[in-house]
Amino acid sequence: MNKLSDLGERKAIEFISKIVSKGKVAVGIGDDCAAFEFGNKYLLVTTDMISEKTHIPKTMKPWQIGWFTVAVNLSDISAKGGKPLGILLTLGLPKDTSESFLKELVKGADKCATQFGTAIVGGDTKETSEIMLSGTAFGTVQKDEFMSRKGAKPGDIIAVTGSLGKAAAGYYALEHNIKNKETLKGILEPVPRISEGVALAKTEVVTSSMDISDGLSSSLYQLQELNKVGFQIDKRKIPLSKALLKFQGKKDINIYEHAIHFGGDYELLVTLPSGEFNNAQKILMKLGTTLTTIGRVTKEKKISIVDGKTKQILKNKGYEHFRKHALF
Amino acid sequence: MNKLSDLGERKAIEFISKIVSKGKVAVGIGDDCAAFEFGNKYLLVTTDMISEKTHIPKTMKPWQIGWFTVAVNLSDISAKGGKPLGILLTLGLPKDTSESFLKELVKGADKCATQFGTAIVGGDTKETSEIMLSGTAFGTVQKDEFMSRKGAKPGDIIAVTGSLGKAAAGYYALEHNIKNKETLKGILEPVPRISEGVALAKTEVVTSSMDISDGLSSSLYQLQELNKVGFQIDKRKIPLSKALLKFQGKKDINIYEHAIHFGGDYELLVTLPSGEFNNAQKILMKLGTTLTTIGRVTKEKKISIVDGKTKQILKNKGYEHFRKHALF
Repeated sequence: MNKLSDLGERKAIEFISKIVSKGKVAVGIGDDCAAFEFGNKYLLVTTDMISEKTHIPKTMKPWQIGWFTVAVNLSDISAKGGKPLGILLTLGLPKDTSESFLKELVKGADKCATQFGTAIVGGDTKETSEIMLSGTAFGTVQKDEFMSRKGAKPGDIIAVTGSLGKAAAGYYALEHNIKNKETLKGILEPVPRISEGVALAKTEVVTSSMDISDGLSSSLYQLQELNKVGFQIDKRKIPLSKALLKFQGKKDINIYEHAIHFGGDYELLVTLPSGEFNNAQKILMKLGTTLTTIGRVTKEKKISIVDGKTKQILKNKGYEHFRKHALF
Repeated sequence: MNKLSDLGERKAIEFISKIVSKGKVAVGIGDDCAAFEFGNKYLLVTTDMISEKTHIPKTMKPWQIGWFTVAVNLSDISAKGGKPLGILLTLGLPKDTSESFLKELVKGADKCATQFGTAIVGGDTKETSEIMLSGTAFGTVQKDEFMSRKGAKPGDIIAVTGSLGKAAAGYYALEHNIKNKETLKGILEPVPRISEGVALAKTEVVTSSMDISDGLSSSLYQLQELNKVGFQIDKRKIPLSKALLKFQGKKDINIYEHAIHFGGDYELLVTLPSGEFNNAQKILMKLGTTLTTIGRVTKEKKISIVDGKTKQILKNKGYEHFRKHALF
């Protein structure tokens, strides 16, 4: 009998989406958020679960756990160009959790919500044997500004906000007990790209968009399958984070492998017509955020990575839950 | 240092609500759902977590686990008079969960969603060491039909849909290995009162409403605190479920204690002006559901229970998570 560990998270979701009936939803399972029609707007809804086993390193502070839970949910709203409306926070906590732990956790969650213009509006609290948090974020976006995962066209360029490898560098620091606060923040305190998502959506030129939390390679494979296109990525154009570059030359870290395959960077991956890129880049620059072309959408349904004169198929090694082998 | 087990779930939620910032929400923490303004409607959102430890007896089938997760969330929508719009389902499952378990669970969730006119529109899947499910339900209600927890007035009558003690009887059957399918359904397959909630809301006479999932006594204490009123309950008027009555006379079960204090009956508890009761009752009768007066709202801020000539203070013994002592 097949186990979830054989299926992997992605296949499990595919499996689920085949069972469930379709409702009156405008955008259903398979995008960053579900979307419902509300006049000329979409109501966006998304949920993400944070488990002790997968997301919470022992050194993570309760404040950071709270921040993280809200941030990863807001990131899904940002990927659709949405403005957040509210957050529900569900806390599964062991009986012996201290009041101060709960206090700090909620403070962290509240800080992330308010920093991005929204609030914790409800939730649930239950006793569990391990820490298990679940957030649900709601938001709205004008229908014609909604950035779907579907719509990438051959000839479009593919671009990414900010830099990659912040989470990988943070993970490396955790593993090697390197106590650099900024580096650790890269994995423990991700920043959702809310204003960037809203600004990109307003341009109405983005043909597809998703957040890159599963890692660049995994995200590209998901976009490829949905859009029946391919991608050619220019390895040298990938914007590497400063934190990751600091570890260049270390034996047990391959900078590009980490930037490409490691999950946890809550950046936006978007496709858009090449003629529109400069304007989009300028708009994000005003928000203090870079937008970098990393390749282009191809008709040929392959994902290749070019490094000077070498061209290779990009492997799909993004982190997935339930998989028998984690990335490292 | 205080632990969550000292606080209890309700105090934990109070504690949380003091920390978080207030957003643009119309109704926030403390009601069955949060509500946002959307033109002349409210968007209702609610979430409930189902944990292996608290909610999932060993004999519960995966189909029932799925049904249960959706049902308890829809119940919160029904308590506000809402029509469900969609469900997000978050599954925390152990690695060795079988594909057939997942399939049955999703089928049960889907069945409950479709039966009440809605659908599973998204979710999340994560690896956890124990089963941990979280549902989020969305719905809408016309603003002037919204049934708040606040609004009960002295003189109003207090009424309940259906009958009480179905879950208690199911629990007793589980504990005593009594394999009566219908009795077990009382705890394992609760039925959310969606059409009843919508119908009551349309009357626009309900002054306060909540679902009774925490038990009658606990629910009354919550309404009392919010409304600064009291209640006088007529013990003999409490509609006892047939399943519970079958166990009358058994040594280890006190019929009234179980009906009043045991949680898990997903019925609606409403207050309304006494002159409006007959009409509301007629409307629910058309849906095949009883509405029974069980007492009245008093100015005096006490909750008393009358049994013939005896009048006592009703104890608050509803089930709460994190508490050191469970009900039985």
